Amino acid sequence: MGALQRRLADFAAARHWQPFHTPKNLASALSVEASELLEIFQWLTPEESERVMADPGTAHRVADEVADVLAYLLQFSAAVGVDPLAALAAKIERNEERFPVRGPAGA
Amino acid sequence: MGALQRRLADFAAARHWQPFHTPKNLASALSVEASELLEIFQWLTPEESERVMADPGTAHRVADEVADVLAYLLQFSAAVGVDPLAALAAKIERNEERFPVRGPAGA
Amino acid sequence: MGALQRRLADFAAARHWQPFHTPKNLASALSVEASELLEIFQWLTPEESERVMADPGTAHRVADEVADVLAYLLQFSAAVGVDPLAALAAKIERNEERFPVRGPAGA
Amino acid sequence: MGALQRRLADFAAARHWQPFHTPKNLASALSVEASELLEIFQWLTPEESERVMADPGTAHRVADEVADVLAYLLQFSAAVGVDPLAALAAKIERNEERFPVRGPAGA
Repeated sequence: MGALQRRLADFAAARHWQPFHTPKNLASALSVEASELLEIFQWLTPEESERVMADPGTAHRVADEVADVLAYLLQFSAAVGVDPLAALAAKIERNEERFPVRGPAGA
Repeated sequence: MGALQRRLADFAAARHWQPFHTPKNLASALSVEASELLEIFQWLTPEESERVMADPGTAHRVADEVADVLAYLLQFSAAVGVDPLAALAAKIERNEERFPVRGPAGA
Repeated sequence: MGALQRRLADFAAARHWQPFHTPKNLASALSVEASELLEIFQWLTPEESERVMADPGTAHRVADEVADVLAYLLQFSAAVGVDPLAALAAKIERNEERFPVRGPAGA
Repeated sequence: MGALQRRLADFAAARHWQPFHTPKNLASALSVEASELLEIFQWLTPEESERVMADPGTAHRVADEVADVLAYLLQFSAAVGVDPLAALAAKIERNEERFPVRGPAGA
């Protein structure tokens, strides 16, 4: 993931895009890309949404939007100095305490 | 990232949340979390957005929302069978052709 | 709707909020509020979503988010000088041509 | 606004789109359209965002997205039985109490 983050940084630097890449703008772009992914699903039933990858054109579109969301998430994280994997590991720990698994009665 | 993906899957399975985790619902949740990240920035100037991590409370909130976005991106990707790192690598290749770097005149 | 737009403008002016109300920021806020409305529905089945107003607490939350979306839509529209009702009427005309109703064969 | 709401309902009915128009799907579509409006602004400075209507092509795009957001807001509101103008009027009342205007010291 660090390697991809560097490639994204080099890509933006080579095109002089850094002035546009404020944390605010990257958060907007991340949200816009997440919505483009949602757009693929907006009229589907739950069952249709499970079969979304059966159509090659739609499957490509889904993979492409996943890539866009990850690209902006990595660029945003680099811009604010957050390690997304560490942040997620910490969050899972907290959630394991917040939502304890209920064992069977008498356990 | 694979390890986190497994922990997220175990976490959801232990709480019997899988029936809710259709691709459609996970795409909605991803979009909602990306908006919660954007909410932190919505009234900030570009300059204020650059300093967002200076306040410990806001910094924690930012890291927390990054974790939530990554969590749903990984869960969505697992649900549809997309490898997000491979999808991003392929996208960067395509973008390098789509947005060529212009060299100096005469180069 | 004009009367509400004026009340919103007076409300913001009395609190000196206009400097924050750039078109960009208002578009962000509109998108964030639309996501808060979506959040209410993200784990519901289509059938559960049809019954969302049966619970008074959820019904209040839905109405509240509708109000927030309309508030930012009106404030955004005022900031850029668009009349939303006229824009929608024009769009419906265009869509009636773009998506013609197919009559029965032989009609 | 009631007249537009009826035209939208007739438009959807004539195309047999009602089965797709669950509250959940309409909330998704509303959120997707709000993001398309935000997309126009994502890389602009606050100052550029103030001048967004100076370009006729962009001005048309802005008006078009405003129309889409209003269309889904009205269709969502009809689907759940909320009057958006009444909801906003009630919200403004509550906000006037929640965010009182501070008078000058000694007033």
